[in-house]
Amino acid sequence: MYSLSEDYDTLRTLDNNQLRQAIRTSKYEGHTAGLAAGFLQANVIILPEKYALDFMRYCQRNPKPCPLVGVSETGSPLMHTLGSDIDIRSDVPHYSVYRNGEMSETVTNISNLWADDFVAFAMGCSFTFEDALVRAGIPIWHIQNNKVVPMYRSSIDTCEAGPFGGKMVVTLRAIPADRVDEAIEISRRYPMAHGAPVHIGDPSLIGLDDLSKPDWGDSPAPVGDSIPVFWACGVTPQNAIIRAKLPITISHTPGCMLITDIDDQAEVTVFGNKSPNYS
Amino acid sequence: MYSLSEDYDTLRTLDNNQLRQAIRTSKYEGHTAGLAAGFLQANVIILPEKYALDFMRYCQRNPKPCPLVGVSETGSPLMHTLGSDIDIRSDVPHYSVYRNGEMSETVTNISNLWADDFVAFAMGCSFTFEDALVRAGIPIWHIQNNKVVPMYRSSIDTCEAGPFGGKMVVTLRAIPADRVDEAIEISRRYPMAHGAPVHIGDPSLIGLDDLSKPDWGDSPAPVGDSIPVFWACGVTPQNAIIRAKLPITISHTPGCMLITDIDDQAEVTVFGNKSPNYS
Repeated sequence: MYSLSEDYDTLRTLDNNQLRQAIRTSKYEGHTAGLAAGFLQANVIILPEKYALDFMRYCQRNPKPCPLVGVSETGSPLMHTLGSDIDIRSDVPHYSVYRNGEMSETVTNISNLWADDFVAFAMGCSFTFEDALVRAGIPIWHIQNNKVVPMYRSSIDTCEAGPFGGKMVVTLRAIPADRVDEAIEISRRYPMAHGAPVHIGDPSLIGLDDLSKPDWGDSPAPVGDSIPVFWACGVTPQNAIIRAKLPITISHTPGCMLITDIDDQAEVTVFGNKSPNYS
Repeated sequence: MYSLSEDYDTLRTLDNNQLRQAIRTSKYEGHTAGLAAGFLQANVIILPEKYALDFMRYCQRNPKPCPLVGVSETGSPLMHTLGSDIDIRSDVPHYSVYRNGEMSETVTNISNLWADDFVAFAMGCSFTFEDALVRAGIPIWHIQNNKVVPMYRSSIDTCEAGPFGGKMVVTLRAIPADRVDEAIEISRRYPMAHGAPVHIGDPSLIGLDDLSKPDWGDSPAPVGDSIPVFWACGVTPQNAIIRAKLPITISHTPGCMLITDIDDQAEVTVFGNKSPNYS
């Protein structure tokens, strides 16, 4: 059993397959930030097929918060387009189970809940563009201080589809004023990881009056002379499923992502996608 | 009634709404290359809802040939996420109707075929990245010579979903050797318009032995000293629906695209998508 605080250095030496194996066997049940470097991590939503077409429409209409990187066959827990051996029933460190729009339990394995009509959706996550920002030397406070990025329910409406809609959840990163343009340009290169920011500057314009109290994640340091920059967040669909009040929906617990076999720099997030002499 | 050859200069003066109105009223029934400049044009597939979830999976798994830019509600012909007044029954210049996998007719209006269970899909098209290549001064032979880009059924397999699969259709552009890297970089910026190339160089590696005989479009000039560069093509899903042998499917006729209200430089292809002070 690994602990994030005690075994972080060991966990960081595990590759994507080793880490996923540790998660599958419940030896690791924590956050995945900074782990399995170089591989795409994903937000997860699992729901009955009856709602799957509308949920795919919702993702298509809201590609910044919900960039779809993989969809299972109906009833199959194997995410074969995201890796050679990914079982969505066991390979997420922590799951949140929602019933009729309320979170009813968190578990580390959903084999006993899996149903023949379930469809699993994986959506890209901000770790991908954050790594690129850090590589460019742009300081990211929550990473430097080993905190979870602050997430807020904004006043920005998402585009509805069937029962899915509601406000967009956003993440905050305070960026030095002279690096903001670069941060926009870098993150826009990752459309499968939320892309460019959705708001820059005055938080009150997107309904946020007190940045010290995020809805999820850790409180940030005061923004100071930096510029508050907000990106769309993969927790948005969890907000949408609470609102939709489906009989059952299962998601990853924020921060505890699915580790895939996809290179996090890949243009196409499909496992085994290869052109003959160019990729 | 406009004719492409006689009224091209007049047609080019029409904005997206005027051109769509001319198409809706069957005053124009031709190709849309070079028209309604600055607005996203789209490939179209319409099929019964029964197959819609698998078709969306197919698009998600093959984002280069099938970059989804819009999906209608079931039974609604109004593509409200692509513009303020788009009726998919009348707003495509020419439609191809497929029955049981065979092309049965081409028509300019599908109002009499529309059914309550139809779902319409719009996919980005190469005009967007071609414009960017031309603006960068990269010579594109078929544009300079007013021809339709040559399209070929390659040997590259697409990733299957339900009844949908088959080979990828690709387009050819011969690019001067010293501009190939730039062409890759520019086109990769447009993930909603097929992105970076899928193959560069020897055509026989993707099953193409005679470039002078494309499966669709016009024959190209000999490649000469340039490098043959192949991009994924939005005709790929037409190939997939022929193979799937659905009772009915309707597509645009290659080259005769849907004109949308979306800025063709937009990161998010959703009409009215605006953040408070940043987009």
